[in-house]
Amino acid sequence: MQFFVYSAVAAGFGIAIAAFGCGIGQGMAVRGAVEGIARNPEASGKVTVTMLIGLAMIESLSIYALVVSLILIYANPVSTAMQGFVGLGK
Amino acid sequence: MQFFVYSAVAAGFGIAIAAFGCGIGQGMAVRGAVEGIARNPEASGKVTVTMLIGLAMIESLSIYALVVSLILIYANPVSTAMQGFVGLGK
Amino acid sequence: MQFFVYSAVAAGFGIAIAAFGCGIGQGMAVRGAVEGIARNPEASGKVTVTMLIGLAMIESLSIYALVVSLILIYANPVSTAMQGFVGLGK
Amino acid sequence: MQFFVYSAVAAGFGIAIAAFGCGIGQGMAVRGAVEGIARNPEASGKVTVTMLIGLAMIESLSIYALVVSLILIYANPVSTAMQGFVGLGK
Amino acid sequence: MQFFVYSAVAAGFGIAIAAFGCGIGQGMAVRGAVEGIARNPEASGKVTVTMLIGLAMIESLSIYALVVSLILIYANPVSTAMQGFVGLGK
Amino acid sequence: MQFFVYSAVAAGFGIAIAAFGCGIGQGMAVRGAVEGIARNPEASGKVTVTMLIGLAMIESLSIYALVVSLILIYANPVSTAMQGFVGLGK
Amino acid sequence: MQFFVYSAVAAGFGIAIAAFGCGIGQGMAVRGAVEGIARNPEASGKVTVTMLIGLAMIESLSIYALVVSLILIYANPVSTAMQGFVGLGK
Amino acid sequence: MQFFVYSAVAAGFGIAIAAFGCGIGQGMAVRGAVEGIARNPEASGKVTVTMLIGLAMIESLSIYALVVSLILIYANPVSTAMQGFVGLGK
Amino acid sequence: MQFFVYSAVAAGFGIAIAAFGCGIGQGMAVRGAVEGIARNPEASGKVTVTMLIGLAMIESLSIYALVVSLILIYANPVSTAMQGFVGLGK
Amino acid sequence: MQFFVYSAVAAGFGIAIAAFGCGIGQGMAVRGAVEGIARNPEASGKVTVTMLIGLAMIESLSIYALVVSLILIYANPVSTAMQGFVGLGK
Amino acid sequence: MQFFVYSAVAAGFGIAIAAFGCGIGQGMAVRGAVEGIARNPEASGKVTVTMLIGLAMIESLSIYALVVSLILIYANPVSTAMQGFVGLGK
Amino acid sequence: MQFFVYSAVAAGFGIAIAAFGCGIGQGMAVRGAVEGIARNPEASGKVTVTMLIGLAMIESLSIYALVVSLILIYANPVSTAMQGFVGLGK
Amino acid sequence: MQFFVYSAVAAGFGIAIAAFGCGIGQGMAVRGAVEGIARNPEASGKVTVTMLIGLAMIESLSIYALVVSLILIYANPVSTAMQGFVGLGK
Amino acid sequence: MQFFVYSAVAAGFGIAIAAFGCGIGQGMAVRGAVEGIARNPEASGKVTVTMLIGLAMIESLSIYALVVSLILIYANPVSTAMQGFVGLGK
Repeated sequence: MQFFVYSAVAAGFGIAIAAFGCGIGQGMAVRGAVEGIARNPEASGKVTVTMLIGLAMIESLSIYALVVSLILIYANPVSTAMQGFVGLGK
Repeated sequence: MQFFVYSAVAAGFGIAIAAFGCGIGQGMAVRGAVEGIARNPEASGKVTVTMLIGLAMIESLSIYALVVSLILIYANPVSTAMQGFVGLGK
Repeated sequence: MQFFVYSAVAAGFGIAIAAFGCGIGQGMAVRGAVEGIARNPEASGKVTVTMLIGLAMIESLSIYALVVSLILIYANPVSTAMQGFVGLGK
Repeated sequence: MQFFVYSAVAAGFGIAIAAFGCGIGQGMAVRGAVEGIARNPEASGKVTVTMLIGLAMIESLSIYALVVSLILIYANPVSTAMQGFVGLGK
Repeated sequence: MQFFVYSAVAAGFGIAIAAFGCGIGQGMAVRGAVEGIARNPEASGKVTVTMLIGLAMIESLSIYALVVSLILIYANPVSTAMQGFVGLGK
Repeated sequence: MQFFVYSAVAAGFGIAIAAFGCGIGQGMAVRGAVEGIARNPEASGKVTVTMLIGLAMIESLSIYALVVSLILIYANPVSTAMQGFVGLGK
Repeated sequence: MQFFVYSAVAAGFGIAIAAFGCGIGQGMAVRGAVEGIARNPEASGKVTVTMLIGLAMIESLSIYALVVSLILIYANPVSTAMQGFVGLGK
Repeated sequence: MQFFVYSAVAAGFGIAIAAFGCGIGQGMAVRGAVEGIARNPEASGKVTVTMLIGLAMIESLSIYALVVSLILIYANPVSTAMQGFVGLGK
Repeated sequence: MQFFVYSAVAAGFGIAIAAFGCGIGQGMAVRGAVEGIARNPEASGKVTVTMLIGLAMIESLSIYALVVSLILIYANPVSTAMQGFVGLGK
Repeated sequence: MQFFVYSAVAAGFGIAIAAFGCGIGQGMAVRGAVEGIARNPEASGKVTVTMLIGLAMIESLSIYALVVSLILIYANPVSTAMQGFVGLGK
Repeated sequence: MQFFVYSAVAAGFGIAIAAFGCGIGQGMAVRGAVEGIARNPEASGKVTVTMLIGLAMIESLSIYALVVSLILIYANPVSTAMQGFVGLGK
Repeated sequence: MQFFVYSAVAAGFGIAIAAFGCGIGQGMAVRGAVEGIARNPEASGKVTVTMLIGLAMIESLSIYALVVSLILIYANPVSTAMQGFVGLGK
Repeated sequence: MQFFVYSAVAAGFGIAIAAFGCGIGQGMAVRGAVEGIARNPEASGKVTVTMLIGLAMIESLSIYALVVSLILIYANPVSTAMQGFVGLGK
Repeated sequence: MQFFVYSAVAAGFGIAIAAFGCGIGQGMAVRGAVEGIARNPEASGKVTVTMLIGLAMIESLSIYALVVSLILIYANPVSTAMQGFVGLGK
């Protein structure tokens, strides 16, 4: 039964740790962007586009962790099999 | 029964760790923005818009962790099944 | 019975860890703002507004953790069910 | 009985960790403010007001943790019920 | 009996961790103030007042932790009840 | 049965830790890029291309961890064999 | 008997952790002061006074931890009661 | 049976820790490169080549960890022998 | 008997942790002082006096920890009582 | 049997920790190199050669760890003997 | 018998941790001094004297930890008594 | 049998930790060298020689750890004796 | 028998931790010295002398830890007595 | 038998931790030296000599740890006695 326990722990902490790091990374990117726009407002279009590409790349890292977390909660094949085994699944 | 225990722990710490990192990240972004506006108040519109986009992206990371935390507390399918199994549910 | 124990731990530490990170983040934002106003007092209106938006966004992260903490203490459905199970609730 | 034990631990450490982070955050904000006033004493009114708003926001984070700590010590509903259960409450 | 043990641990470490963070925060604030006064001695009045407000705010965070520590040692209601239960109190 | 437990833990934390580090790394890269474009908008093409190459390289590191995580969940040969052994697999 | 054990641990580590943080904080304050005096010796009176106020505030944080440590060793009411209980005091 | 458990843990965490460090390292390299190109776009060819050599060297470090992780999952000779021993391998 | 064990541990580590932090703090103060004197040798008297006041304040923090360590080894009242109880003290 | 377990752990984590540190080290070296080339493209030959020598030295550190990891998996003499002892080796 | 064990641990680690922190602190002080002398060789006398006072203060912190370590090994009164109790001391 | 287990762990982690630190140290040295050469290409000979001396010194630290690791795996006299004792050595 | 075990651990780790910190401290001192000499070669005599005094002070901290380590291995009086007690000493 | 186990652990980790710190310290020293030579090649002789003195001092710290590690493996008197006791030594 420990399996469900640690799946929950891994899901909850996993997305949190990923959000922690990516949040700091995105913060650095955004800080650079707003400082750059303030120094040179005319480049704001290019800066914003580049920043968005970067944020999307960082967001993708966090999405990977989110996907793994959701797999651990909902779609883990072992989990499904186990539920059948211990008579919990419908 | 350990399942509910660790779900609570994962939910409580998960959102907290995500808030920790995203809070620092947003703080960096806001700091850059206010410093930029102070240096060049005329760019404040563009800076604020860019900052808001960035904050929204960082906020989304934290929302992912919040969603996972709430799933662990309210909507975990295994949890629902288990409640039925041990006779706790309605 | 461990469930109530760890709920309390997760609630107490969760809000604390979130406050830790968001406090540092807000401190960075405020520092940037006051330094900016000192350098350019005429932009103080725009700077203050931007700072408040940012602080509100960071505050929201901490509120998420507070909400999860309170849910763990007061409104956790499993907790309610368990109290009935072990004859503690009214 | 472990419940009271860990409630005390969570209360004591929770407020301490929150104070740790918020203390550093407020220190950063105050440092920025006093440096700014020294550089431009004429802006001291605006700087002080902005600083106070920021400190109040950071203080609020710490208050959240304090409230949760006090709830864990005095007003936790489970705790109240448990005291009745084990015959400790009046 | 573990209750008294961990109350003491939480009280001793709690105030210490809070003092750690607030000490660093106050050190940053004081450093900014003395550097500012050295650069612009004429602003020393305003700087000192602002610094004192900030230090008081940081001090208050530490006081919260001190209050919780003293509650855990002297005024915890559960603790009082328990002493009666185990025949230790007068 | 511990095998499935720790596979889930390793999968969930593994992708999270990788996302943490790569998120910070990408954030540094994006920050450099947007600051550079703001300083010299005419070089934005070259800067963006170089940044994308770099982000792709960093992304690849995270993909390695994602692949290992998915292998641990879905395609681990030992896992498959074990499922047959304990009669869980179809 | 564990009570006396952990009281000693909490007292010894508590004052040490507080001294750690406050020592760094005071070091930052003193460093700022001596650098300021070297740059502008004529402001040394004001700088020294401000520094002393700040050091006293930081010192007070450490005194709080010292007081709690001494309470845990000498004046804890539970401790006194326990000594009577196990026949050690007199 | 612990062998398979810890092999999975070592594989999952190993590649993650390596990705963490190499991600930060590559981020530093890319940041330097894009800042350099922005300052001196004419050197972008040489800078990009040098950066790619460096990224490849860092990538190689991560590949080593990936190879060890895959060996631990698929090609560990002891693992193969063990499978035969406990009748799991085909 | 664990009491003497942990008293020794708390005494040895306590003074060490305090020395760690205060050593770094004093190092920062001394560094500021010698750099200041090198820049402006004529202020060396004032700088040295201020530095000594600061070092004495930091030293006092470490003395607190030393006093608590020696109390734990030599003068703890509980310890004295216990020695009589187990027939060790003469 | 613990021997094979911890050999796998040491091999997997060992190469990962080494890759972590060397990745950061190489990142610093590459960053310096690309910034230098951007500032002075004419020195790019000498810079690249020096950088490659340095990267090779750092790579060698990681190779040492890789060699020890592979020895632990494939060529550990004790391991070979043990396999014979427990009848696993061919 | 655990008493002698942990006394040794506390003595060995205590002096090491103190040396760690004081070593860094002294390094900072020495670095400031040699940089100052290089910038202004004529102030070398005053700088060296001030540095030596500071190093002596830091050294004293480490001496405290050394004294406590030696007390724990050689002169702990409880230790002496215990040796007589278990018939080890001559 | 634990002896072989922990020898493997110490060997694998030991070389890894040493590589971690020395990799960062060498990275700092190489970064300084390439930046220096870029600023003053004519000094590249002297810089490279000095850098190589430094890298060799750092490498030697890592070699010490490698030697100890290999001794723990292959040439530990106790290990040899033990193999004879438990009849594993040839 | 645990006594010899932990004495060895404390000796091995103690000198290592002290070397860690003092190595960083000495590195800072040496870095300051060589940078100073490069800027002002004529002050090299005074800088070198000051640096050597500082290095000797830092070295002394490490020697303290080394002495305690050797005492724990060779000259611990309790250790000597114990050897006699368990019939191991000659 | 735990004695040999922990001796090996202490030897392997001890030299590794010392190498970690000293590697970073030497890296800082070398970085300072190569940057200094690049800025002022004519001082390269004096800089190199000073750097070598410093590196030798740092190396000595690591040698202490190496000596203690080798003593723990080969020349520990207790170890020798124990081998005789359990009939392992020749």
